[in-house]
Amino acid sequence: MKPFFKVKTSEEIKTIIRAFPILGRETVSIDDGLGRVLGETIFSPEDLPPFPRATMDGYALRAQDTFGASESIPALLNLSGEIAMGRPALSPIRPGHCYRIATGGMLPPGADAVAMIEHSQVLDEGTIEIFKPVSPLEHMIQAGEDIRKGQTLLNKGVRLRPQDLGLLAGVGIRAIPVFRRPKVAIISTGDEIVPIEEKPLPGLVRDINSLTLKTLTTQCQAIPKGLGLVKDSFEELKDLCRVGLEGCDVLLISGGSSVGSRDHTLEVITSFPEAEILAHGISISPGKPTILARIGDRILWGLPGHTVSAMVIFSLFVKPCLQVLEGEQAVPNLPGLTARLTRNVASAQGREEYIRVALQQVDGTWEAAPILGKSGLISTMVRADGLIRIDQDCEGLEKGEWVEVLLF
Amino acid sequence: MKPFFKVKTSEEIKTIIRAFPILGRETVSIDDGLGRVLGETIFSPEDLPPFPRATMDGYALRAQDTFGASESIPALLNLSGEIAMGRPALSPIRPGHCYRIATGGMLPPGADAVAMIEHSQVLDEGTIEIFKPVSPLEHMIQAGEDIRKGQTLLNKGVRLRPQDLGLLAGVGIRAIPVFRRPKVAIISTGDEIVPIEEKPLPGLVRDINSLTLKTLTTQCQAIPKGLGLVKDSFEELKDLCRVGLEGCDVLLISGGSSVGSRDHTLEVITSFPEAEILAHGISISPGKPTILARIGDRILWGLPGHTVSAMVIFSLFVKPCLQVLEGEQAVPNLPGLTARLTRNVASAQGREEYIRVALQQVDGTWEAAPILGKSGLISTMVRADGLIRIDQDCEGLEKGEWVEVLLF
Repeated sequence: MKPFFKVKTSEEIKTIIRAFPILGRETVSIDDGLGRVLGETIFSPEDLPPFPRATMDGYALRAQDTFGASESIPALLNLSGEIAMGRPALSPIRPGHCYRIATGGMLPPGADAVAMIEHSQVLDEGTIEIFKPVSPLEHMIQAGEDIRKGQTLLNKGVRLRPQDLGLLAGVGIRAIPVFRRPKVAIISTGDEIVPIEEKPLPGLVRDINSLTLKTLTTQCQAIPKGLGLVKDSFEELKDLCRVGLEGCDVLLISGGSSVGSRDHTLEVITSFPEAEILAHGISISPGKPTILARIGDRILWGLPGHTVSAMVIFSLFVKPCLQVLEGEQAVPNLPGLTARLTRNVASAQGREEYIRVALQQVDGTWEAAPILGKSGLISTMVRADGLIRIDQDCEGLEKGEWVEVLLF
Repeated sequence: MKPFFKVKTSEEIKTIIRAFPILGRETVSIDDGLGRVLGETIFSPEDLPPFPRATMDGYALRAQDTFGASESIPALLNLSGEIAMGRPALSPIRPGHCYRIATGGMLPPGADAVAMIEHSQVLDEGTIEIFKPVSPLEHMIQAGEDIRKGQTLLNKGVRLRPQDLGLLAGVGIRAIPVFRRPKVAIISTGDEIVPIEEKPLPGLVRDINSLTLKTLTTQCQAIPKGLGLVKDSFEELKDLCRVGLEGCDVLLISGGSSVGSRDHTLEVITSFPEAEILAHGISISPGKPTILARIGDRILWGLPGHTVSAMVIFSLFVKPCLQVLEGEQAVPNLPGLTARLTRNVASAQGREEYIRVALQQVDGTWEAAPILGKSGLISTMVRADGLIRIDQDCEGLEKGEWVEVLLF
């Protein structure tokens, strides 16, 4: 057995990841902007809305002309006409006058409020009664009230949501500077693995990791590129790594990352001239046999072959790594969920441990039931809704304790 | 003013939605399965793994041959050879014998455990010393331990995650029965609206809702189809509705759903012979002017024109509606987040109210800061992380109260 020679804690790994450089910028159409990370802080080129608008159907007027109005002594206003939707008023508002206006209509100059149609009555063709005083700025949006020209619209590093795109659309920004999405090459290794299209002969099993790692990558908004399977062979793995290093930013190699005689990942990585091993072994469970390396500006992850371990390492480290490369601003810790443990969980001291849990809601409280199964069993991940963490200084958690659940 | 004539509570709307029928099934490749909803319960066609496997590098043996072994008196076993990775053993294990085996290797018949290489020593070419007893089933996975042949793999109605796809891949299921994704036609209405490509003249504003509704639809895994803009014209809207009803399962029409003279949505919907108005008005704020209707097997939503209201109604009702149509099994209430309110919020009694909030973590506690802005201001949604609900019988919430936050 060769030893793990550069074991790091999960905090040390996170520190290394945070220092990775952002990939670079490109411009996309607003139609392709969902989920992309903004590459520049954007300032508004104009006021939104560009003019004062009614937010109710009613009458545009000067608020002061309604002061003191009541059911018994209504304000009487002269009707100057109707504001056509989508058009400016023909003339400014005069004292004692009003315009009929619909929701979304443009207030005429001089008008500072809208009286709701429900509080009015047409007395005759040219006269409107208003039964309730309105305050200045009532039932309207001022020009620039949503966003002012020059104001920050969105900050660099934001992952764009529907409302963020809506705001950009509102001020007419359709070409959006974003950071490039990481391209992620995925390789599975192992003499015992066959592609999922094949019926495995005795001793062989299907390649689960390629698919789980590809889809996890897709969920991170990165671009997966499956390079397929290699046997436990230094040369074959090296050839496929070369392909991955050419076209991709990140390389995920599952299997072969441990310290057995069949484990070639470390050897292959170090055979590249520029290679720098950042970690060989992470002091957590599951997932200890993990390699993090760098070759030039490419990041390489040697992931454990056990499916569960590979998925846990992806969730804890590869995902944040992809977020850093894509320039996503540090989001505060995921809003995890607090739940009550349904049974005791023991843990070896001196090692940070992650336990799969299934969640259920009982009388309005979330309960987390530990799923204790080997890390080679993918069914345990299927039953799980998230992970809980046991600190390295902790001997275990007790039934009834409140735990923070990191949701998948 | 015409009145709202069929106002429903949010609970009544949810009951109506839950009764909508599922769209229908189709089959997709496992490569396209991420995020799709499983259309049938799937049973495993085989054992996973199909044979007993080692989970450590070491020696496959009969556990009983190691009982009583220690550093001072090791068990001595005859080495029958090495199990080639991906191949079955050449012969069953004999008492007192062992095979060298690597992680993932197939145990020979008769072997019931694996001794770790760390607890062994090669005495000579044909003899291995084992220093620590192993229990039966230690460091191995039994055939079918992950999933047994015939066992339920995944239930109908599950939205497929990476681990679910991994499990299907593991047992060789590559053609996946799923429910069809809803096709959603999206129409914006209003004389004052122009496409986002245009520079609006005075009185006009850009169409924000088409983009926010399209991207919200995409986030729900449904398929948006933007039909564009229409003026406040009965005929134009009816023509575009016809297009939407032909090719799509759901129609979202923003603007024109209220009771003003320019609001044609209700009129257009009722002009179709089979139309059934399920709700006209929902007793919540924002978003009261909402229409829910059915024409044959098509669902129509008339959404408020105010961007914020349209987004809130989408999150609260359209999203669950799309989930029902796609056959997703009722997920327990979203694991919301509990946060402490940073200030008092007043609310009109008799009306359920949703308040936008921004979240921040202060000393490990989540704080929810209400964002009080008009529902025409999209910037308030950009600053928000979620919604809190104020019950209709409640006059408001107080600073410091714990509230459940529905995350966007």
